[in-house]
Amino acid sequence: MIIILRPDATEANIEHIVERAQKLGLKANVSRGVERTVIGFIGPEDALRVVPLEVFPGVEQVVQVLAPYRLVSREFKKEDTIIKLNYGTNVGGKKIAVMAGPCSIEGYEPMLSIGKTVKAMGANILRGGAFKPRTSPYDFQGMGEEGLKILQAVGKEVGICTITEVMDTRQVELVCKYVDVLQIGARNIQNFSLLKEVGASKKPVMLKRGMSTTVKEWLMSAEYLMANGNFDVMLCERGIRTFETATRNTLDINAVPVAKKLSHLPVIVDPSHGTGSWEYVGAGARAGIAAGCDGLMIEVHDNPEEAFSDGAQSLMPSKFQEMMAGCRRVAQAVDRDL
Amino acid sequence: MIIILRPDATEANIEHIVERAQKLGLKANVSRGVERTVIGFIGPEDALRVVPLEVFPGVEQVVQVLAPYRLVSREFKKEDTIIKLNYGTNVGGKKIAVMAGPCSIEGYEPMLSIGKTVKAMGANILRGGAFKPRTSPYDFQGMGEEGLKILQAVGKEVGICTITEVMDTRQVELVCKYVDVLQIGARNIQNFSLLKEVGASKKPVMLKRGMSTTVKEWLMSAEYLMANGNFDVMLCERGIRTFETATRNTLDINAVPVAKKLSHLPVIVDPSHGTGSWEYVGAGARAGIAAGCDGLMIEVHDNPEEAFSDGAQSLMPSKFQEMMAGCRRVAQAVDRDL
Amino acid sequence: MIIILRPDATEANIEHIVERAQKLGLKANVSRGVERTVIGFIGPEDALRVVPLEVFPGVEQVVQVLAPYRLVSREFKKEDTIIKLNYGTNVGGKKIAVMAGPCSIEGYEPMLSIGKTVKAMGANILRGGAFKPRTSPYDFQGMGEEGLKILQAVGKEVGICTITEVMDTRQVELVCKYVDVLQIGARNIQNFSLLKEVGASKKPVMLKRGMSTTVKEWLMSAEYLMANGNFDVMLCERGIRTFETATRNTLDINAVPVAKKLSHLPVIVDPSHGTGSWEYVGAGARAGIAAGCDGLMIEVHDNPEEAFSDGAQSLMPSKFQEMMAGCRRVAQAVDRDL
Amino acid sequence: MIIILRPDATEANIEHIVERAQKLGLKANVSRGVERTVIGFIGPEDALRVVPLEVFPGVEQVVQVLAPYRLVSREFKKEDTIIKLNYGTNVGGKKIAVMAGPCSIEGYEPMLSIGKTVKAMGANILRGGAFKPRTSPYDFQGMGEEGLKILQAVGKEVGICTITEVMDTRQVELVCKYVDVLQIGARNIQNFSLLKEVGASKKPVMLKRGMSTTVKEWLMSAEYLMANGNFDVMLCERGIRTFETATRNTLDINAVPVAKKLSHLPVIVDPSHGTGSWEYVGAGARAGIAAGCDGLMIEVHDNPEEAFSDGAQSLMPSKFQEMMAGCRRVAQAVDRDL
Repeated sequence: MIIILRPDATEANIEHIVERAQKLGLKANVSRGVERTVIGFIGPEDALRVVPLEVFPGVEQVVQVLAPYRLVSREFKKEDTIIKLNYGTNVGGKKIAVMAGPCSIEGYEPMLSIGKTVKAMGANILRGGAFKPRTSPYDFQGMGEEGLKILQAVGKEVGICTITEVMDTRQVELVCKYVDVLQIGARNIQNFSLLKEVGASKKPVMLKRGMSTTVKEWLMSAEYLMANGNFDVMLCERGIRTFETATRNTLDINAVPVAKKLSHLPVIVDPSHGTGSWEYVGAGARAGIAAGCDGLMIEVHDNPEEAFSDGAQSLMPSKFQEMMAGCRRVAQAVDRDL
Repeated sequence: MIIILRPDATEANIEHIVERAQKLGLKANVSRGVERTVIGFIGPEDALRVVPLEVFPGVEQVVQVLAPYRLVSREFKKEDTIIKLNYGTNVGGKKIAVMAGPCSIEGYEPMLSIGKTVKAMGANILRGGAFKPRTSPYDFQGMGEEGLKILQAVGKEVGICTITEVMDTRQVELVCKYVDVLQIGARNIQNFSLLKEVGASKKPVMLKRGMSTTVKEWLMSAEYLMANGNFDVMLCERGIRTFETATRNTLDINAVPVAKKLSHLPVIVDPSHGTGSWEYVGAGARAGIAAGCDGLMIEVHDNPEEAFSDGAQSLMPSKFQEMMAGCRRVAQAVDRDL
Repeated sequence: MIIILRPDATEANIEHIVERAQKLGLKANVSRGVERTVIGFIGPEDALRVVPLEVFPGVEQVVQVLAPYRLVSREFKKEDTIIKLNYGTNVGGKKIAVMAGPCSIEGYEPMLSIGKTVKAMGANILRGGAFKPRTSPYDFQGMGEEGLKILQAVGKEVGICTITEVMDTRQVELVCKYVDVLQIGARNIQNFSLLKEVGASKKPVMLKRGMSTTVKEWLMSAEYLMANGNFDVMLCERGIRTFETATRNTLDINAVPVAKKLSHLPVIVDPSHGTGSWEYVGAGARAGIAAGCDGLMIEVHDNPEEAFSDGAQSLMPSKFQEMMAGCRRVAQAVDRDL
Repeated sequence: MIIILRPDATEANIEHIVERAQKLGLKANVSRGVERTVIGFIGPEDALRVVPLEVFPGVEQVVQVLAPYRLVSREFKKEDTIIKLNYGTNVGGKKIAVMAGPCSIEGYEPMLSIGKTVKAMGANILRGGAFKPRTSPYDFQGMGEEGLKILQAVGKEVGICTITEVMDTRQVELVCKYVDVLQIGARNIQNFSLLKEVGASKKPVMLKRGMSTTVKEWLMSAEYLMANGNFDVMLCERGIRTFETATRNTLDINAVPVAKKLSHLPVIVDPSHGTGSWEYVGAGARAGIAAGCDGLMIEVHDNPEEAFSDGAQSLMPSKFQEMMAGCRRVAQAVDRDL
């Protein structure tokens, strides 16, 4: 921690800050410049981080020296984390994982059909929502536990891992029974109660970045999961909210290399939400792989016109197949498999 | 609902859309212009809203005619909603409500002291967090139920209403026992499970706008509360996230008249979070009142240097008193009391 | 300037940086902490500011100690700047200046009519665009020099100061001949050639903040004007671009106290552009005054339906009069006149 | 154009709007729904676009049917535009163009050295700034005409096309004499005087998207160039401004397929500005190609530590070579050459 003082800060101001730091076990290093005095602290920065130094008299600016996250960081663990799932599926290694399926689970038959299709085309994790976070209370809210049962049955029938969103602390235990991977949605990125509960469950989890979450905050939410005991965490970039309205969200492609540099966790890209339109999903998926992501999440539906939700951004199977072919070539061009 | 077709849309495309609308009980009105064909629909728009018309062949643009919210709208209810609380406190009428207190409940003695102080200075609702949404898992997470008991005891002792945040569906029943008003924080604006649970509780509730929530989405989240039976809803503007870093958030002052125009619900302004710095809280509070808000939420602490959280944006009692005096004059200038 | 090193920075890295700083006349103060080494520099920071320290091996983060602007800062000049114009009009003192008039100059008669009206209602500067920055090349681009002549004639006839936008370095001399105050529009906030030319002209100038300009960058653009010799600079907050689409722009009310704290220059608020809708202009104007601004800029048109531009956000004279009455009361409530 | 009326709109309101439209030569189609009346207009929409329909009594919402740009659109021209330059260099065809070089021209010798290097590594356009848009008036402002002469001389010596930024209407003629391609920088995206002057010059031009420019506005600025006679226009995505601070800008990768869909103009990606850090340039470049861009613009410097500007995001030649090798593989994976 470094404090930059105001030009009119007094010796008493300096003394007051130094004393406070010393009480917390830190050594203060006061450097008097021509225009500003600067105080650097040596010792356990965490103790000082919760003190609102900005309100101390004479303080102009407070600079953090250390990142506030630890377990998720590359400093904590140098090697890439690889998460091992059923059916030999890994997330995080050379092979790029592909999660695909409909936005919502809509019944056994359609789920089985799409499950077989996406597996045949190369997906290794089947997605489908049973509890749906919908902007309107009047929209379809998901099939609930019945949907989870369908997803589990289809997963076994097809021989593919499954992922579904969990929205409520009270559902965590239930959802854990039925699927291989939990998903925390963008809207729950700072639902800290849910993060703690999912952390405690130790079930593999994919954490979607929120619409206006910085990379730093995204990593802090992942830290919640890890600090509560869950080390099988995947990060998912799904587009952020900006002023641009030509697309539903702005896929933050920079976030891929940034997150890979700062953290050892695998990074998934979701171009379905990241663009909001099936026409742009292929471009976003290829870009994600070219930028270094470890997996894709893609909405696929046999008949988008009839989808219960997110039809506009769902690919028909034929388009998904085309996308996979294009992605495979790009993956090879960056020494990855798909 | 209106659909604008692509220039290359065929008659078969048009027929396909018209048929689908008819099945849903709507009448389609096809208007062939020079450069584009437009289809308008007459009938229950809600039925069509969930159909992903964007993916129908030939469609270029889909335009909503009606707002997706109903119960929260001025169309549904013309008169301003006034929420009646204990001790003769109203939120929503001529008198501007003032919620004040520390970010976190830190113990009985400090809470009692600050409670007496803010009441004496004109506040009529005492705030204090027992469950704290903290970005870091290593930061103080709140006193929990013990904190709720303190808040309740102080409220009774001082004779002032109380408000506290609820973060988890499992806490709703508990929190309802202890306080007069529930708060849903910015990070939970689209925690739909929580919205449903708080809606069902019928306890007066203040809904903070999320950091990147549009006014429309904010109203949709309020609609969740009302659709689940809770009509005592206050909206709270607390700053949005933008590119500007000179302040913690950007207080969206426009949102006050916009929300008042679109909805009958009372609108609170929180300049503590809206600016993030005690130096700007007074300006933000006065601006809120001048723009037409119905209440203020202000963080006040006896000793911000020692605050467990949000010290940088907390006012000392003397500054709070000064702020109240300034706000009172502005309130009178816009024919309100405070 | 402070440099925070990476955990793996070597002694050679440190030496390399220290040497470079010494060559530039700075003294380096190396502080070795438990987890990071920090280097502080004592001496003329400007010399170091242009060196890309981020690319030096071993560097993790570079922290500026001093603001990059000087002449515009409160440190440079403590007292508020007051700009003296014709007809006893000041911008920056106790009395709040009001600039009002149509978006575009549309002819002598309408300009005279609106000029008389707004003056009678309390405005002291008449606005009107002769060169219009229009998003579309097919929209009305302004009357050019003929418009300037009209504005000057009406100003004299009515006895009121005038302001108009200048968009092109080649127009600066011409525009200076006709008006009292130059305006630099939001889109030209970083048109540095124009800033230099207007700086050299020494004509009073109002600098509109750009749609995505931080307060710091806004002040840097003002610094361009002052560094080129022009000390009669007003800042104008006119709304920033955010994700919110309910209003044309988001009026950044926080920017008023922030700019007043950092700079001695007067701050104007433009709620016409800041909201984009005549219905919200009054709320924005009152909020601006309550937050401490020194002036208002308001679009007024005798018949908004027929306005050549910006009709949607223009007030009719009767609405302007109402707005002025409301603003006057708020001004008095914050010890200002209007 | 479509107008949605308020629920309380009167017949007189409707008549008033219909009359106005008829005067402008449009036919109005009034459709009375259950909750709203909608008016569609048939005929030349441009005539109506400049009328502020939002202020007409009874109007709730105005919907544009047609995009406001014409010449830049795919509707106007179906085939991709290919711009032919010297030395057989094309921008817009199967081969991806690579523009590379230092941020600023710093002298003949360094320019010659870097020019030879980047050409040898596969670049076909040499970049270098002679007039620099710098945030601070105290920073290096470029070598001016002397820099242009150096760039021209090096271009001839090396046998490579050249590009440089033009910032001022008064410089356009001068700059045209020395280089093959003009660049309009992000800060001048809505400097309409400059757009007109560069449009009239008919010199090939690359138009950088502004920091907060929507794709639609970006295309409108390109329309200015084309409407003034210049058809050799390239678009350049260089990152937008968002809330994220981990990178200098947020590279909007979605903008590539969106701009390619809406327009026939070639799209360049600038990952140097789009990320702001040399560490992420390679990922951004590969993502741009995978998403379908037609060219890259990359800052390369022999010694970034000594660069006059933008050192932090400049690649050393060895890193540039590595980047080119990676990009070439991705280009082939999407059936392009580089």
